[in-house]
Amino acid sequence: MKKKVIFDTDPGIDDAMAILFAQASGKIDLLGITTVFGNATIENATRNALYLKQRFSIPAIVCKGAKDPLIIPAGEPTTFVHGQNGLGDIELPDSLSVNADPRIACDFIIETVRNHPSEVTIVAVGRLTNLALAIQKAPDIIALVKEVVVMGGAFGHNGHTGNVSPYAEANIIGDPHAADLVFTQQWPVTVVGLDVTQQSIMNDAYIQKLKEQSDVYGDFIYQISHFYSNFHKQSVGLDGFYVHDSSAVAYVLAPELFKIQQGPIRVVCEGPAMGMTLCKTLEKAFPVDGWQDKPSQQVCIDVDSQGLLDLYFNILRN
Amino acid sequence: MKKKVIFDTDPGIDDAMAILFAQASGKIDLLGITTVFGNATIENATRNALYLKQRFSIPAIVCKGAKDPLIIPAGEPTTFVHGQNGLGDIELPDSLSVNADPRIACDFIIETVRNHPSEVTIVAVGRLTNLALAIQKAPDIIALVKEVVVMGGAFGHNGHTGNVSPYAEANIIGDPHAADLVFTQQWPVTVVGLDVTQQSIMNDAYIQKLKEQSDVYGDFIYQISHFYSNFHKQSVGLDGFYVHDSSAVAYVLAPELFKIQQGPIRVVCEGPAMGMTLCKTLEKAFPVDGWQDKPSQQVCIDVDSQGLLDLYFNILRN
Repeated sequence: MKKKVIFDTDPGIDDAMAILFAQASGKIDLLGITTVFGNATIENATRNALYLKQRFSIPAIVCKGAKDPLIIPAGEPTTFVHGQNGLGDIELPDSLSVNADPRIACDFIIETVRNHPSEVTIVAVGRLTNLALAIQKAPDIIALVKEVVVMGGAFGHNGHTGNVSPYAEANIIGDPHAADLVFTQQWPVTVVGLDVTQQSIMNDAYIQKLKEQSDVYGDFIYQISHFYSNFHKQSVGLDGFYVHDSSAVAYVLAPELFKIQQGPIRVVCEGPAMGMTLCKTLEKAFPVDGWQDKPSQQVCIDVDSQGLLDLYFNILRN
Repeated sequence: MKKKVIFDTDPGIDDAMAILFAQASGKIDLLGITTVFGNATIENATRNALYLKQRFSIPAIVCKGAKDPLIIPAGEPTTFVHGQNGLGDIELPDSLSVNADPRIACDFIIETVRNHPSEVTIVAVGRLTNLALAIQKAPDIIALVKEVVVMGGAFGHNGHTGNVSPYAEANIIGDPHAADLVFTQQWPVTVVGLDVTQQSIMNDAYIQKLKEQSDVYGDFIYQISHFYSNFHKQSVGLDGFYVHDSSAVAYVLAPELFKIQQGPIRVVCEGPAMGMTLCKTLEKAFPVDGWQDKPSQQVCIDVDSQGLLDLYFNILRN
């Protein structure tokens, strides 16, 4: 049976690649794509989700979500990573034949989770604002969600501590209060952070081969990833780019690719370390302990990178 | 030539042991002992410093300092670690024949540093409130201090991340704003944190031997350390106790015992990770970087424990 998934996202080049990964897998029933500010403005992120829906005949409902973080001021979209339009500045049509659902993202999440109790996996690969708004508005859904898989954070494994700041990853620093809220609820969260996403790299040869072997997706991925690859080349001297959002989809499809650590997770919400994610794995009790009464969650601390790259390739090629 | 030192402290059992270590070394000219709240109330900490001055004929001036942190609310003194009176509840005289200097600690620090430009090492083994007040009041002293040696913090080396909370050490969580201010000034700071202080342990046999071989200090240390040792036994199952404050003095006397790492240091000032110390050692620049414009400081990341224990023993025995 297919896994019912709500995909919360800010497309975004790697978001688009992850949506196609989920759709092409044949193992995911994509109930909805909910959008959030981040890699692009909320308008562009929503337009891009709709463009993907139209171009690749994705049946999922698309709902527009939050344009701002819960508490901190809104930042600029990261157009230097994803292009002005969020999809690497490829040419996009002026108008689309598909429309967003009238519901806002958090309402769609609430209704969909209630309609499918214990069946819905939420895969969130952007700021966690929509999820935070949903649980603030309807705390009953916390007990009804099957699993939450988050691309975000950095726990220091494999030398990865942050990408926006020395200690913070983009999705978490973009709305730290939302992330802390999501991580500390009584629902099962698995965090797929830089610890693993920066271990997998799609290089130019990989993308070239995908272009040649995937009739449906190859050329599109080739076109959009050019901008993304250039950003990685210039900022970290990489041949290719890190596999951020698709790693969260890979976890849903093949969790056995990942090594897991367990413990409660908190987020630093202010100051120079804002956005830092901390998973307490010590059993020891402390006089002051903001982790102790929080549920244990899962953090991915290592990945079979080759297995992940092969999985993506084989699914997208079909 | 003796090193001119201002010793900022909250005695405190290990503080007292560190003061005797500095005094007995013959290599430190103890210009002043400035007190701060923490291990004891400011009244008890000051009384204890004066008691040490009287009992061991220490010529240093004693000045009473801050009773509260800069910004966060005052906590309770840690009497469960150091006893109600701060010296392991040994019997203390009702009155002393020595008095505190009329100046408050921060004023004494300012005047003394100005009177001995580039000559004064400040060794701070309590909350950093007095130092922070001094630099707020007289920023000119920043350029005049020779070196600041701080016992505090935890950077995750050797598995040590915190003692009060999973990520914070007592002196830093006790006044995180003061610590962040002290660490980020243009003066040379060396931090002697749990990374090294918890690597050195004075066990019962060590203290017993010291009692037998040190006519001047042995019995006093034996008496006060009983309470401290019991706390360690009950809280972490240790035979003996960690060498916190004396490790800072050891750094002044024998820096070659320590392995050093360099980088700017910031402190988390709120939330569950409050008091966490973070030293950025990466050369890489980040879009958001609260470390980048701060001076590089020194963090002790390893120690020759046996060398340190031998140094303490040999100095106190004389």
